[in-house]
Amino acid sequence: MRGVVLHAPGDVRVQDREDPRIVATTDAIIRLSATCVCGSDLWPYRGIEKIEGPQPMGHEYVGVVEEVGSAVRTVRPGQFVVGSFWASDNTCEICQAGYQSRCVHAEPMNPIGTQAQRARIPLADGTLVATPDIPTDDQIPSFLAASDVLGTGWFAATAAEAAPGKTVAVVGDGAVGLLGVLAARHLGAGRIIAVSRHADRQKLALQYGATDIVTERGDEGVARVKDLTGGLGAHSVIEAVGTKESMMQAIRSTRPGGHVGYVGVTHGVELPGMELFFSGVHLHGGPAPVRRFLPDLIDLIWHQQIDPGKVFDLALPLDQAAEGYRAMDERRAIKVLLRP
Amino acid sequence: MRGVVLHAPGDVRVQDREDPRIVATTDAIIRLSATCVCGSDLWPYRGIEKIEGPQPMGHEYVGVVEEVGSAVRTVRPGQFVVGSFWASDNTCEICQAGYQSRCVHAEPMNPIGTQAQRARIPLADGTLVATPDIPTDDQIPSFLAASDVLGTGWFAATAAEAAPGKTVAVVGDGAVGLLGVLAARHLGAGRIIAVSRHADRQKLALQYGATDIVTERGDEGVARVKDLTGGLGAHSVIEAVGTKESMMQAIRSTRPGGHVGYVGVTHGVELPGMELFFSGVHLHGGPAPVRRFLPDLIDLIWHQQIDPGKVFDLALPLDQAAEGYRAMDERRAIKVLLRP
Repeated sequence: MRGVVLHAPGDVRVQDREDPRIVATTDAIIRLSATCVCGSDLWPYRGIEKIEGPQPMGHEYVGVVEEVGSAVRTVRPGQFVVGSFWASDNTCEICQAGYQSRCVHAEPMNPIGTQAQRARIPLADGTLVATPDIPTDDQIPSFLAASDVLGTGWFAATAAEAAPGKTVAVVGDGAVGLLGVLAARHLGAGRIIAVSRHADRQKLALQYGATDIVTERGDEGVARVKDLTGGLGAHSVIEAVGTKESMMQAIRSTRPGGHVGYVGVTHGVELPGMELFFSGVHLHGGPAPVRRFLPDLIDLIWHQQIDPGKVFDLALPLDQAAEGYRAMDERRAIKVLLRP
Repeated sequence: MRGVVLHAPGDVRVQDREDPRIVATTDAIIRLSATCVCGSDLWPYRGIEKIEGPQPMGHEYVGVVEEVGSAVRTVRPGQFVVGSFWASDNTCEICQAGYQSRCVHAEPMNPIGTQAQRARIPLADGTLVATPDIPTDDQIPSFLAASDVLGTGWFAATAAEAAPGKTVAVVGDGAVGLLGVLAARHLGAGRIIAVSRHADRQKLALQYGATDIVTERGDEGVARVKDLTGGLGAHSVIEAVGTKESMMQAIRSTRPGGHVGYVGVTHGVELPGMELFFSGVHLHGGPAPVRRFLPDLIDLIWHQQIDPGKVFDLALPLDQAAEGYRAMDERRAIKVLLRP
């Protein structure tokens, strides 16, 4: 099969890879209907995260089940399924508490690499959720979004306790931040402040439910959010970048007793304990337990209640993955869908 | 009047200070029935926190109202009252959300200095809560504890979401940690692991409801808590020290999705963002909004449901405050009560 392999920073190749096979009785093999490039794929692409030799890429996926191991009970060949970037058994105490990304048997999808024609999904019963029927082509981008960026934005909005009567600020205008806006809106927040300086992203943020746009970053951005919230700061702030600047902007934009939901994969961030202490905020985040939200998200997409697929503003054949990485790296695209 | 003044690290003097007077119409003047030395007083005492010239000390207090400003409505002369270390109006949006320590009109009690015979209490209506009647002498230590260490331990247990069915670990065996144990028990936690290596503090922890004692610190302490929780970590962890070691011990002792309530005043702590991200814990803490809990705590103490006053294992006349500081500094006493 064909699959994407990162050989060195900036060196993305689409090449022949061995076809996946059932390894454990709990595995499934899926044929990818769509996959995509993640903001977190850019860390190794940019050389900020080291790689040890050629690395298959990709951890977002939707597709049709081709084969299942002998122990698999809940999905069957022919079904269209959505999974997330951590395989999880969905039965352990941590999964049952809603933290499937930290399942005691969790397996990351990253080394498997779903930017490919086929993929092996471990712990298929716990990981995969089938859609009611085979979706139409134009529904596929939204289901693909559920696999990571929608689920991650949803987790961030949940961690930030977005709810009716609250003002939510969103730091980060990538796909996750934009879908954090959508999630905050769906969770009932009345006022949603999107921090963005890109016209195309501002437009999508407004479509997804943002009521205010702040273009300033850092302490100026904080001051603008305070201006908009009677000097107090937002009740709920979503952080979807992962730098120290964005974390501090998020914490400082939150009122005392408010909630920060942070999902940007942190790189080189040290949080000043004293400032955090006196901020009085709640801080929660990490790798999103997307699996917790998948049944509800699939239901919302199936019934056309939400349209997260709009974050894909560029779709390319899998063989043009290198151009997809470049477009995201250069911010020419919010998020790139790849058709295997 | 007599009052405690810190002149330089280690140099505590009890000296004549000017009698307090009503400054604002919202002030009250109280005659102290008891006051005490706080673990946080040891930071400047030890020279870790700089002071600018002689500094009146103390922010914990119970006493009898002597005089009120013309705008004060809810307390009157002759009442026995409890307040906390931040004066707050208890009416602003932040107070109403339960974060009175970050009231938009908050005034710290520290510069006022309640280790004295009398004290001016700003924003008396919002800050002070009267007891149903004048308490007996042996109830006074418990009401004094409510002023800070009990309220702070209670906030930590609440922030850590201690509740029935949960295992709570408590890092720190000072008065706040011990009262965190008491709070966790009262909030219904079945299993409470106290981290302590001092026999007298272990004993009090067990009296307050601890079910397990862990004597190891740092990563060994983490390993012991994991051993006691099926390898997962505690659901709820209270941090009541404020060092980087204790913060990391608390975070690492918490299961993914669990809650850390941290109330040790952080000094020189930088939290590694990447580790925090992947920990998947909830982090909440800061200066405790003691005022939120005072009505309930006063009720519990009045009806002898809890006995937080046991943390005072040394009582001295105010004039011997210097010995009180030494006893706490040298860990000869858990907490020192001063009688003005």
